[in-house]
Amino acid sequence: MSFTLAEAKAADAADPLRNFRDRFHLPEGVIYLDGNSLGPLPKNVAPHQRAVVEQEWADGLIRSWNTADWINAPQRVGARLAPLIGAKPHEVIVTDSTSVNLFKLLVAAARLSDRKTLLSESGNFHTDLHIASGVADVLGLTLDIAPRAEVEARIGADTNVLLLTHVHYKTAERFDMARITARAKRAGTMTVWDLSHSVGAVPLHLNDAGADLAVGCGYKYLNGGPGAPAFLYIAEHLQEKLLSPLRGWMGHAEPFAFTDDYRPARGIDRFMAGTPPILGLAALESALDAFEGVTMERLWSKSRAMFDVFVGLMEARCPEFRCITPRGEEQRGSHISFAHDHAFEICQALIAEGVIGDFRAPEVIRFGLTPLYLGFEEIWQAVDILARIMAEERWRDPKYAVRGKVT
Amino acid sequence: MSFTLAEAKAADAADPLRNFRDRFHLPEGVIYLDGNSLGPLPKNVAPHQRAVVEQEWADGLIRSWNTADWINAPQRVGARLAPLIGAKPHEVIVTDSTSVNLFKLLVAAARLSDRKTLLSESGNFHTDLHIASGVADVLGLTLDIAPRAEVEARIGADTNVLLLTHVHYKTAERFDMARITARAKRAGTMTVWDLSHSVGAVPLHLNDAGADLAVGCGYKYLNGGPGAPAFLYIAEHLQEKLLSPLRGWMGHAEPFAFTDDYRPARGIDRFMAGTPPILGLAALESALDAFEGVTMERLWSKSRAMFDVFVGLMEARCPEFRCITPRGEEQRGSHISFAHDHAFEICQALIAEGVIGDFRAPEVIRFGLTPLYLGFEEIWQAVDILARIMAEERWRDPKYAVRGKVT
Repeated sequence: MSFTLAEAKAADAADPLRNFRDRFHLPEGVIYLDGNSLGPLPKNVAPHQRAVVEQEWADGLIRSWNTADWINAPQRVGARLAPLIGAKPHEVIVTDSTSVNLFKLLVAAARLSDRKTLLSESGNFHTDLHIASGVADVLGLTLDIAPRAEVEARIGADTNVLLLTHVHYKTAERFDMARITARAKRAGTMTVWDLSHSVGAVPLHLNDAGADLAVGCGYKYLNGGPGAPAFLYIAEHLQEKLLSPLRGWMGHAEPFAFTDDYRPARGIDRFMAGTPPILGLAALESALDAFEGVTMERLWSKSRAMFDVFVGLMEARCPEFRCITPRGEEQRGSHISFAHDHAFEICQALIAEGVIGDFRAPEVIRFGLTPLYLGFEEIWQAVDILARIMAEERWRDPKYAVRGKVT
Repeated sequence: MSFTLAEAKAADAADPLRNFRDRFHLPEGVIYLDGNSLGPLPKNVAPHQRAVVEQEWADGLIRSWNTADWINAPQRVGARLAPLIGAKPHEVIVTDSTSVNLFKLLVAAARLSDRKTLLSESGNFHTDLHIASGVADVLGLTLDIAPRAEVEARIGADTNVLLLTHVHYKTAERFDMARITARAKRAGTMTVWDLSHSVGAVPLHLNDAGADLAVGCGYKYLNGGPGAPAFLYIAEHLQEKLLSPLRGWMGHAEPFAFTDDYRPARGIDRFMAGTPPILGLAALESALDAFEGVTMERLWSKSRAMFDVFVGLMEARCPEFRCITPRGEEQRGSHISFAHDHAFEICQALIAEGVIGDFRAPEVIRFGLTPLYLGFEEIWQAVDILARIMAEERWRDPKYAVRGKVT
């Protein structure tokens, strides 16, 4: 594909979303292709965070649980997020981390049935597999980890819960949520979807897909900040049937009655545990402002166009990279990944030159395509820089081979 | 006791800690006696929070996991906190909420033995009892909730784990940690201490007391902000024996190897679960600056003096309140609580007049005595305002009977 710099500039000029970029703080000299790992700072977050710390906490003190409505933040931010995933407002709360929420939902779901097997995918994001293995260990179940191509066929009469990540963290492969959920339902299996790499990136229709349960991350495409609290979704019809194993006071029917006995709150509130993390919730809440006035379908349309440009430029200029992300638009998410034997060093060289993607062991570079704030010229420039790094073998500089704790 | 306003002013003038007050933002017109529920804003927090959001996140982006050392925040803040509880730096991490940490430790401890009973105290802070009941439910154990006076005698051959809150959230009664831990050890029972109402308030010597396991809250006397992340403590000799049921990726031996199999990290790190909540951790980290240059013994000495003044003034001017906090300095924490049939309305009237304490159902007003930022004149003024509210029966105004969700 011959997509020139001039064409990239023209595409940006014609982009109806081009002004959304102004909603973000993006440092000079950086092309940020890692919003699928940590979203950049939405401009509304900083003043809101200042207000929460320097007014609500500073002057409101304990009163702000009521006067600033901190107490309802998990539900309020959940309701705000619900349209992005095709859920009803009271089907989503924001609380704890993705890992902790996964534990709560897996235990709750598994205990509804006598079936003995949890099923997931080999190569799933490892926290999902580890959490599932912990659940299996505590409940005396078996965790069956199947190759991706065999997962559906492995759903059987003893499959209690199927845990899948909707968009794969490494390859960006996407499962067909509606079809797999339906298949699992026919087998009497409950499904838990991890939406960490989907939410804010691809259109999601949990209600339409008949999804039972889901969790997802607040700090990737939702731009909620480092270690942002995560969300959990429970379909309305399941909410009174499920019980959280983490019976914290905020999930009690009357948290301020201070009674010895546990009585679960009605609905999804029972999946709250401890006191909500207000600073993180506030950041995520104002981060969601960046999605105001645009549909997920519109964002996805731009993501698809960016994908086509990226993959075309890579084929033309960096043919030594093997794209491991499916081409079919229904088969993938909003990042694009390439395999290369020297992915680690190349990724380091790119970062040194201001193009931030990330490395995933053992041989993958990922680039996040985030339509809210990325433009076509940036993609052109990123591939141009990569092509020069490869042509001049700049990635062979020994400094790029040094591995830190986080890569 | 006749403690006059002039004497209160003289006590403040002679107080070697009087300048520590400058480390906090305290709003005008408020006497804040609720630092045991939500500590006020330490002045170092706001600029640090701005730096984390507006520089580390904004400009550093994903790189800040390394360059700003976000990745080690749970251990770094834990090590910072360790001296306040008499622990070694590598025995404490800051992560998740108190409720979630309690779940992790209770499950881990209970699974070391075949004993079938978890023991706790009736009237313990209810999240502790609810979490313990969830653990009992998942593991097939029995939760024995004993009256406070009978707890020690109830430790028996089938007692697996004893869960106690060191300082009682309502009455401020304090357990003798060393004696009870020793008694439990003799019975082969593991002990989990909840330090939420102790940490930053009374001297703690976990190592000296032979404590096995502990959790505690970041937002009370530690002033870490609303819903601050909590800490957990594991005695060094137990760290390799215990396994967390919440096997999140951050507790994996190699979080960035992305392997299907779970291998726990060495030491306390295995009790990490999801991605650490950086905004909350940063607030707590800079909040701990307020403890620099003072020992817990020095703080406790001032707390005792404030207690004596408070209780003496209440006896002299508000004798209709019954103090439910023990007088003996080894038998209590750093708040003081009074019972009154109209505690709710009286608490509301106090708040309306700028004296912020809190109500705990059904009939208790609590006042936090926080030596870092409170002075003797404030205590005198608080009791003076309370005495006037009582004398003029201002609490009978119907507006003070309206109950909100959080009280």
